[in-house]
Amino acid sequence: MSAAERPTVLVLNGPNLSRLGRREPGVYGATTLAEVERGLIALGAELGLAVDCRQSEYEGRLIEWAHEAADRGWPVIINPGGLTHTSVALRDALAEVAAGPGFHEVHISNVHAREEFRHRSLLSGIAAGILIGCGTNGYALALRDVAHRLAGTGE
Amino acid sequence: MSAAERPTVLVLNGPNLSRLGRREPGVYGATTLAEVERGLIALGAELGLAVDCRQSEYEGRLIEWAHEAADRGWPVIINPGGLTHTSVALRDALAEVAAGPGFHEVHISNVHAREEFRHRSLLSGIAAGILIGCGTNGYALALRDVAHRLAGTGE
Amino acid sequence: MSAAERPTVLVLNGPNLSRLGRREPGVYGATTLAEVERGLIALGAELGLAVDCRQSEYEGRLIEWAHEAADRGWPVIINPGGLTHTSVALRDALAEVAAGPGFHEVHISNVHAREEFRHRSLLSGIAAGILIGCGTNGYALALRDVAHRLAGTGE
Amino acid sequence: MSAAERPTVLVLNGPNLSRLGRREPGVYGATTLAEVERGLIALGAELGLAVDCRQSEYEGRLIEWAHEAADRGWPVIINPGGLTHTSVALRDALAEVAAGPGFHEVHISNVHAREEFRHRSLLSGIAAGILIGCGTNGYALALRDVAHRLAGTGE
Amino acid sequence: MSAAERPTVLVLNGPNLSRLGRREPGVYGATTLAEVERGLIALGAELGLAVDCRQSEYEGRLIEWAHEAADRGWPVIINPGGLTHTSVALRDALAEVAAGPGFHEVHISNVHAREEFRHRSLLSGIAAGILIGCGTNGYALALRDVAHRLAGTGE
Amino acid sequence: MSAAERPTVLVLNGPNLSRLGRREPGVYGATTLAEVERGLIALGAELGLAVDCRQSEYEGRLIEWAHEAADRGWPVIINPGGLTHTSVALRDALAEVAAGPGFHEVHISNVHAREEFRHRSLLSGIAAGILIGCGTNGYALALRDVAHRLAGTGE
Amino acid sequence: MSAAERPTVLVLNGPNLSRLGRREPGVYGATTLAEVERGLIALGAELGLAVDCRQSEYEGRLIEWAHEAADRGWPVIINPGGLTHTSVALRDALAEVAAGPGFHEVHISNVHAREEFRHRSLLSGIAAGILIGCGTNGYALALRDVAHRLAGTGE
Amino acid sequence: MSAAERPTVLVLNGPNLSRLGRREPGVYGATTLAEVERGLIALGAELGLAVDCRQSEYEGRLIEWAHEAADRGWPVIINPGGLTHTSVALRDALAEVAAGPGFHEVHISNVHAREEFRHRSLLSGIAAGILIGCGTNGYALALRDVAHRLAGTGE
Amino acid sequence: MSAAERPTVLVLNGPNLSRLGRREPGVYGATTLAEVERGLIALGAELGLAVDCRQSEYEGRLIEWAHEAADRGWPVIINPGGLTHTSVALRDALAEVAAGPGFHEVHISNVHAREEFRHRSLLSGIAAGILIGCGTNGYALALRDVAHRLAGTGE
Amino acid sequence: MSAAERPTVLVLNGPNLSRLGRREPGVYGATTLAEVERGLIALGAELGLAVDCRQSEYEGRLIEWAHEAADRGWPVIINPGGLTHTSVALRDALAEVAAGPGFHEVHISNVHAREEFRHRSLLSGIAAGILIGCGTNGYALALRDVAHRLAGTGE
Amino acid sequence: MSAAERPTVLVLNGPNLSRLGRREPGVYGATTLAEVERGLIALGAELGLAVDCRQSEYEGRLIEWAHEAADRGWPVIINPGGLTHTSVALRDALAEVAAGPGFHEVHISNVHAREEFRHRSLLSGIAAGILIGCGTNGYALALRDVAHRLAGTGE
Amino acid sequence: MSAAERPTVLVLNGPNLSRLGRREPGVYGATTLAEVERGLIALGAELGLAVDCRQSEYEGRLIEWAHEAADRGWPVIINPGGLTHTSVALRDALAEVAAGPGFHEVHISNVHAREEFRHRSLLSGIAAGILIGCGTNGYALALRDVAHRLAGTGE
Repeated sequence: MSAAERPTVLVLNGPNLSRLGRREPGVYGATTLAEVERGLIALGAELGLAVDCRQSEYEGRLIEWAHEAADRGWPVIINPGGLTHTSVALRDALAEVAAGPGFHEVHISNVHAREEFRHRSLLSGIAAGILIGCGTNGYALALRDVAHRLAGTGE
Repeated sequence: MSAAERPTVLVLNGPNLSRLGRREPGVYGATTLAEVERGLIALGAELGLAVDCRQSEYEGRLIEWAHEAADRGWPVIINPGGLTHTSVALRDALAEVAAGPGFHEVHISNVHAREEFRHRSLLSGIAAGILIGCGTNGYALALRDVAHRLAGTGE
Repeated sequence: MSAAERPTVLVLNGPNLSRLGRREPGVYGATTLAEVERGLIALGAELGLAVDCRQSEYEGRLIEWAHEAADRGWPVIINPGGLTHTSVALRDALAEVAAGPGFHEVHISNVHAREEFRHRSLLSGIAAGILIGCGTNGYALALRDVAHRLAGTGE
Repeated sequence: MSAAERPTVLVLNGPNLSRLGRREPGVYGATTLAEVERGLIALGAELGLAVDCRQSEYEGRLIEWAHEAADRGWPVIINPGGLTHTSVALRDALAEVAAGPGFHEVHISNVHAREEFRHRSLLSGIAAGILIGCGTNGYALALRDVAHRLAGTGE
Repeated sequence: MSAAERPTVLVLNGPNLSRLGRREPGVYGATTLAEVERGLIALGAELGLAVDCRQSEYEGRLIEWAHEAADRGWPVIINPGGLTHTSVALRDALAEVAAGPGFHEVHISNVHAREEFRHRSLLSGIAAGILIGCGTNGYALALRDVAHRLAGTGE
Repeated sequence: MSAAERPTVLVLNGPNLSRLGRREPGVYGATTLAEVERGLIALGAELGLAVDCRQSEYEGRLIEWAHEAADRGWPVIINPGGLTHTSVALRDALAEVAAGPGFHEVHISNVHAREEFRHRSLLSGIAAGILIGCGTNGYALALRDVAHRLAGTGE
Repeated sequence: MSAAERPTVLVLNGPNLSRLGRREPGVYGATTLAEVERGLIALGAELGLAVDCRQSEYEGRLIEWAHEAADRGWPVIINPGGLTHTSVALRDALAEVAAGPGFHEVHISNVHAREEFRHRSLLSGIAAGILIGCGTNGYALALRDVAHRLAGTGE
Repeated sequence: MSAAERPTVLVLNGPNLSRLGRREPGVYGATTLAEVERGLIALGAELGLAVDCRQSEYEGRLIEWAHEAADRGWPVIINPGGLTHTSVALRDALAEVAAGPGFHEVHISNVHAREEFRHRSLLSGIAAGILIGCGTNGYALALRDVAHRLAGTGE
Repeated sequence: MSAAERPTVLVLNGPNLSRLGRREPGVYGATTLAEVERGLIALGAELGLAVDCRQSEYEGRLIEWAHEAADRGWPVIINPGGLTHTSVALRDALAEVAAGPGFHEVHISNVHAREEFRHRSLLSGIAAGILIGCGTNGYALALRDVAHRLAGTGE
Repeated sequence: MSAAERPTVLVLNGPNLSRLGRREPGVYGATTLAEVERGLIALGAELGLAVDCRQSEYEGRLIEWAHEAADRGWPVIINPGGLTHTSVALRDALAEVAAGPGFHEVHISNVHAREEFRHRSLLSGIAAGILIGCGTNGYALALRDVAHRLAGTGE
Repeated sequence: MSAAERPTVLVLNGPNLSRLGRREPGVYGATTLAEVERGLIALGAELGLAVDCRQSEYEGRLIEWAHEAADRGWPVIINPGGLTHTSVALRDALAEVAAGPGFHEVHISNVHAREEFRHRSLLSGIAAGILIGCGTNGYALALRDVAHRLAGTGE
Repeated sequence: MSAAERPTVLVLNGPNLSRLGRREPGVYGATTLAEVERGLIALGAELGLAVDCRQSEYEGRLIEWAHEAADRGWPVIINPGGLTHTSVALRDALAEVAAGPGFHEVHISNVHAREEFRHRSLLSGIAAGILIGCGTNGYALALRDVAHRLAGTGE
């Protein structure tokens, strides 16, 4: 399969994930977002998937990207950062993805070991899969699950 | 590495997981627990891990197995079934595992898309990783994360 | 209809019901569980039903019996005792019964006239019928309702 | 025993029960209230009880009937419809019945499988018995329990 | 008084107390359960009491032992571990003890200095005495209070 | 050890404890505070401890005494009466004691068997030990635990 | 002042107050409503007030009477019975009275010593005065307060 | 289309709406209910609809009218007054209308700008449309929406 | 009856009532506490009661006075000011009065028309009577109710 | 009146409304936003109003537009999408509009028939009118209400 | 301006602030209250203000001082210690100050970074300014704000 | 010290603060943001600080500026407007600042005297100082506290 023929997976990172490797390394690790994205593109190639990675601090931008994924039929892997707990608008945008290709929700740290207000996700109820606390490896596991589902054996 | 030398991972399934493939197939899929366990043993072999699978309907038995894992230094992958939401005693047993080899919490279905009382887990706060809604593939992803962590690159 | 041909109803009693007649007689009456069970078997014979009565203090055992009922297609009448208010695992086991032959939930005393924590049942939402506060006669009424439903006139 | 000598049981139906057989038949069945009442009178005759059936959409009327039952010493079987969850005034009227002949609370559908606001009953705390989700057979079971209690074996 | 004539006190330890000395020594101390039990037997001898010590990870087993205490009229000292906060069934079993010889509830650590879900005990409302945070000395203090009460001066 | 050399323990009683023996004897017993204090001084002598007993209806006075204890390094045994549930100021004063010699919290009656508003203590989270429902013997048990801790074996 | 010239006060009693003297005499006393009303008319005469007494089990009727009072400018003394805790419609009707002549709310028993759901009144926020737990004397005290206010010294 | 052939819309007003123009004119305006009703009949004529207007202070009467609408297939526009927030019985009656011709809920004032207890409507969850705070023009807008829906373009 | 022979009633005012006439006159009126007290003494003389009036800003002082009333068998009329909502210690002191001569709780302003935190009283549950919002006349009404009760006709 | 002289109404649509006709057509209908906007402009012309329609996925942009409306004195009709339930910042911006020309809040679907978190609007408390569940016709009804209010007859 | 002519500011410190420099220095710093007060007097002189500093462990005393400030028209700066979260009586006393010269609330530590029960202040709702977490410099900032307001430019 | 050598403080204003002087002048005063910023720059010069002032309606932009401050080591003074109560993403961005140079949170109005939803700040828990209700002088006080801290005497 040529690169052009591979199904695309959209990896979205929300507010403050641009700071990966710098922000609270004890919680989020020392790997930068660029390194994580390179690793995912490599793993995607292995799994026969094109991986498109984007990040924004703006809720509005993430919503536009979710619309694009819904239009193109791309599965989404998203770490929504702090918007996880507060954005109904992002949920509404992802609801279209959920009704189509589906999305996975990833959290690098274990949100349940942190402040009370991080225990509720507005997105989880419509996610195809949720991966929490596995560090940046969580993105890779999500990508594997997307591949697994695309291979028709997801259950 | 010979089989005997492989680190062991203990896979525990709690109440009603024995019914996998029979109970609400729309929610949990048609694969049986035995099939899932065979798949995990095979994947473990691939990853250089011995996988020991057990299931019980009894909270007390699961607690004893958690003690065994703590004593032997075995990482645990556990799907606690309905005890997830109600058992402080199981949490206390797993706290010892968390302080040592660590444990992953797996839920086959997306608990956040179900009844309110399934949204709170008493275990998540001390888990090394949490995988929700990825179907039975969630066990495999957890096993990969254990391997990833044992390889010293878990972050 | 010979005894062997009669449909079977499984009557389950949970923790502390073994103490019937001894425990808080002002609340639960002076009849023992054995006497109640003999009465149900007699009433069952009258209604053309075989009645199989079991009791356990162990949640795990009750779960196994619920699995057996689901496998055999036996309607269940259950007084879950204190597990009523706390056991998601038992609810999950009975959900299979609910999806098949159905189960009735019986409480001897009026739980709504007692402590606040007895006012919520985790099982009621999926029960085919609920009988509260009718004393040990509640089991008999439940058995009549099972017979009524099996006779195809349950509404 | 002649009809005139039989103890009377008052069967009260509250708001919207007049619609039985028409309102949400999937939830409440297709039998009309008149049919249910005829069945109860027949069963009463069998059990040696006179059955007096009344229905009103008015809380005030139900309260007056409860006063009458308290004055005459008649046991009451009541399906209070939507007032179950909202009427302290009806509870206060039935408290007099509870202190005398007693009353049974009947719900045709399983209120616990419906909206959250139907899970709390203001009446249950003082009822002699509660029958939920047994369809219109619930009235018959309540009548049997009244007979059982009048026969002095209610426990 | 010979050993055979001494009143017996039943000391029950629930889930995970078998781990005493190993589990979170910073919280629970380094003394093992066996050592604690030996100390209690010695103190009991001093106080003229026979001390029978048992431990189980199973809620069902603890319930059976509570029934035995109620039947024999033995006061109980219980550290219910995680069941403290979740088991209505154990409360129901101990309610019989409370109505007879009475029971003391012991917690080694200060549960009020720990997670929110450890602040509520389902048992405290019916206990004869509650000792929290005194380390393993709490068992000894409870035993002294039992002796004090048996001596007829408990107030 | 001469009396002057004995370590001092400060026993503080808060509002209404002056009424001991008069106020609700069914709940608090018939022994007066003076008798309780004499008993504690005697027990202290036995245990090698000087016991200084004080009582006040004023929150402000209790706070001053807690400051004194913090300054002198005296362990405190306190029954804060109704202030238990309402006084952050007293907690703040005792926090200094907790950071030094430590304090025990004593309740004569079983507060958990009483009104809901008595179930929460603002002090328990920082207490060295908590003794509830053991009657006036609770003070003695607390004194024994102080002695036990001073003897260096408190765990 | 002739009877015809006296200002009128409207005394309204809601559901179940017709049962006064019969319903739970331990809570409400043995005086009947007719006797209470006669007493109020006599006291009114003494205070220079005409007293018009009415009672209904129907919320709708009470609302109509409140409208009449608003139209005529009559102060109201109302014991709304169980509607106190549940009727926004009655509050809305009395809001007109509150904006004009004003109303007093009377409860014979101490509602705060009874069930939790009796602790909240939907009417109290707009009442001119509230009298609770003074038995049937509460009506007389309310009447005195109306007289006091009409005399222009109410403060 | 002749008047007789026009589809009928039933406009119901609940408790205290009879006071329109008199009750809190600052909140509800100075137009009387009769004027509002005349305006609706005129607008109905314009839109090809017969408008039948009724008002009652009695919950029971409103329920009967809702039954009539369900039987006749008439859409309903209802301002339930204070019953909005408290009447499950009215909701149950309107549920039949909702399952057939549908109903609109109208509030003259902005209930969300008023007391907390006015923020929850028991009816909104099953309404075809909800119009709040548009003054008495809200009825006209609701009527237009009914016409719009009957014209088959409602979306 | 000579003044010396009259039964005494103790009128207690808590924090900030010393400011009566100065503090928020719109809420509390312009009469000073001294004037109110003089009025009560005069009314007491009329009713055959000696009235002893005291005020303090200190919770501790009020508690001591409540003890005195309990010891002397004096009925109490208390306006506890802000302590109403926060002082369990004062409640405990008044509980002794409640068990003997009884106490009335008075609030000058309508606390239910003010901030949410003023809606709950810790004292009301044990009061013999509660008078709210009648201005300073509330004290006089309370005094009349005490006289009424002492005359043996309180109901 | 020429087009240039018409008062302008600003119609704002928030996040995801750009997807109208595509996103969950079962909930929101098949009409696109462009079609809705064309319809509103046409209706505006009919009513003598200029209609300016804008949409954005960005909270910040909507806030800027609200500022513009406040500055120009334009009434606003806004469907804030998911921001309805979460944006205090948007409320603050619209508060200026509310203090001037006023705004209407429109929801196409019946938010009260959907998830719990959609039941609370942060904007409703300050809206001039709220229209829920009337489909895209809700915008037209809001426009009519604006015209009605500008005509000086809004009540 | 001579010292005698300077406006006076009253600085009040509540329970436990006497311990400043000794109590939890990690939280409150090592400066003593006397040093803080000296600093404030010096700063006051600079700003043309007389500063009167007082401290008490007694709620009653603080209330009396608040009355004095209201009488003299002195602005108040208060650190109420633990009373912040519990004293309605102190709020009532300060309400008079708030209606006159106004008061500032100061907290040395960041109460929002501490226990949940420290997050609510009963005083903040009526304070002229609130300064939290600025250490002892918070008093100085408050004094500057008082000066700023007295200079007539406070906004 | 030359201007170039002065440490920089970043002053951020969030949504709607651009409206200062125009939006609800009764609440926020009549000074414009530009005037406030000029005042801060002047005060900064006095204190030896460079002050960089920025404002945005976009959460995303504020997050980027917080990242910049963290990178440059600039202390931040932020008035987050409505985002205070809703933005976890902004908190996460400021957490980096808090771990470095620190930030002060300023609110011009007294948020605790306003709507309930303004009482909780998601940022306060990690702020170096919080200044509420001091009008626009609050920014100046915050700037002084930054200077105080930079001078090494902040406590």
